[in-house]
Amino acid sequence: MSFSALYKDYQEIVENWLDSVISKHLFQRSGIHEAMEYSLMAGGKRLRPILSLAVCDVFGGDMKDVIPFACAIEMIHTYSLIHDDLPAMDNDDYRRGRLTNHKVFGEAKAILAGDALLNYAFEVMLDNVLDSSKDSEFTSESCGNILKKIKAMKIIANASGTSGMIGGQVVDLESEGKSIEAHLLHYMHKNKTGALIKAPVLSSAVICGANEVEYNSLEKYAENLGIAFQIKDDILDVEGDLETMGKKSHSDAEKMKSTYVSIYGLEKSKEMLSHVTDSAIESIREFGERGSFLKELALFLLNRNS
Amino acid sequence: MSFSALYKDYQEIVENWLDSVISKHLFQRSGIHEAMEYSLMAGGKRLRPILSLAVCDVFGGDMKDVIPFACAIEMIHTYSLIHDDLPAMDNDDYRRGRLTNHKVFGEAKAILAGDALLNYAFEVMLDNVLDSSKDSEFTSESCGNILKKIKAMKIIANASGTSGMIGGQVVDLESEGKSIEAHLLHYMHKNKTGALIKAPVLSSAVICGANEVEYNSLEKYAENLGIAFQIKDDILDVEGDLETMGKKSHSDAEKMKSTYVSIYGLEKSKEMLSHVTDSAIESIREFGERGSFLKELALFLLNRNS
Repeated sequence: MSFSALYKDYQEIVENWLDSVISKHLFQRSGIHEAMEYSLMAGGKRLRPILSLAVCDVFGGDMKDVIPFACAIEMIHTYSLIHDDLPAMDNDDYRRGRLTNHKVFGEAKAILAGDALLNYAFEVMLDNVLDSSKDSEFTSESCGNILKKIKAMKIIANASGTSGMIGGQVVDLESEGKSIEAHLLHYMHKNKTGALIKAPVLSSAVICGANEVEYNSLEKYAENLGIAFQIKDDILDVEGDLETMGKKSHSDAEKMKSTYVSIYGLEKSKEMLSHVTDSAIESIREFGERGSFLKELALFLLNRNS
Repeated sequence: MSFSALYKDYQEIVENWLDSVISKHLFQRSGIHEAMEYSLMAGGKRLRPILSLAVCDVFGGDMKDVIPFACAIEMIHTYSLIHDDLPAMDNDDYRRGRLTNHKVFGEAKAILAGDALLNYAFEVMLDNVLDSSKDSEFTSESCGNILKKIKAMKIIANASGTSGMIGGQVVDLESEGKSIEAHLLHYMHKNKTGALIKAPVLSSAVICGANEVEYNSLEKYAENLGIAFQIKDDILDVEGDLETMGKKSHSDAEKMKSTYVSIYGLEKSKEMLSHVTDSAIESIREFGERGSFLKELALFLLNRNS
């Protein structure tokens, strides 16, 4: 199957699962459901959950063990975007060509919708752990499987917390309007964006029983992929208007944010992008054919236009 | 030991644990630590975690199994207050006599500090589950204990989500400036306040191995306690200035919020308060002497002045 066909398959699995879980389990009466769904079902690349599913396939794992965790990460990613767009934060009116959550539902509901998505991510993961322990006789295998999922949840929780995504967001917030040093820029992105790109890879690896060597290789892959993703974002912010019509670009410069381009320049940034993409691909060479989707994904992200 | 001495003991355990976990584990560099600590360590009754500890003592449970869950609930409670106080929500400048979080740290950081506390609550609970599974040989007992903690976490996650606290907050938001019907007021408080009063009682009961009858009794106790807590709050909002000097009162009326007093009148509200307090106490009669702290706690909340 071609890369793009497989990507589409994964994407469809994610969309269907998210759709079923957001419409089935939520308490309709509370009136928050619509605001959560508006942002969660707004499409997007679904990069994070797709990474989980792809890693699951590397190990021949059972996708139903992985997908709640994959989608929980997408919920966390979505909540972070809703809160990031708020007037007190980035004050953005549009995301993916649609009005941002607070522009449609008001600030108060957007804050609560974000809170609810973060909370719901844990509900969904816990549901899965409890389901998989039902009727279990607690063999050492079944108990071990439960523990793997708890470890996966912990990887995700750490990645979205103060030592991960939120930590990066705070540095971002504190650096606005300032020129920051390269090491701080790197720290910021490693956490703000990178942590939630690493989490789906590593949580899926743990659930699917990766050994230490495999885990470490995937960690290197995900780290490099995260950096590549951010450098590319920064490049697109400068070159985006040339390549894709209608895309709002130069927003980093307008907000006086430090970026890879502002610190290293465009040419050097492109070199770095190419280098970390190579490193990502190199890290998973041991997986051979089984790692081909992950390899092509790195190239796809390198060449994307949006 | 007298009720107030025991309350103070519990409170000290909670303060110490919160203090150690907030100063030890957080990544200082991120700059969010101070904002989280400001609100989390601002004192208060610590009612929720104290309920957990008291239930643990009813069963002679091991407090170290319960305290991370008790304190996680306090973190969730604190995050909800930070977000509730935001300009887009209740727009409050003061809480417990101190400036609200966003008044000190700015709105952006207050949003992130709230997010971080919710996230950290799960990190802390997951840490405990993983710690208690270390070096375990997965006997059916050790596995059962892990599952009890997962169930406790799920109780807490549901209580703070859209079918609990957030669900109630949304109704609160949508009812502002409107006169609402009694059943909606009841629904709102059952979730907005009640859910996080029930969660510490039930999560602790599950961890400490309560049987079904005991669990149901405690559930009735906690439900009634939650209602009593809210009715008393509404009464204090009207009578507060007469009883405690300096307390800002009549804020519900100013915000045109429906309350037990605005719907049922003061006298009827006091009758209801007395009735639900009796029901709470009646529910735990079977625990006899072991339930005496919980009984006195209900009376303490009935008679409080703030």
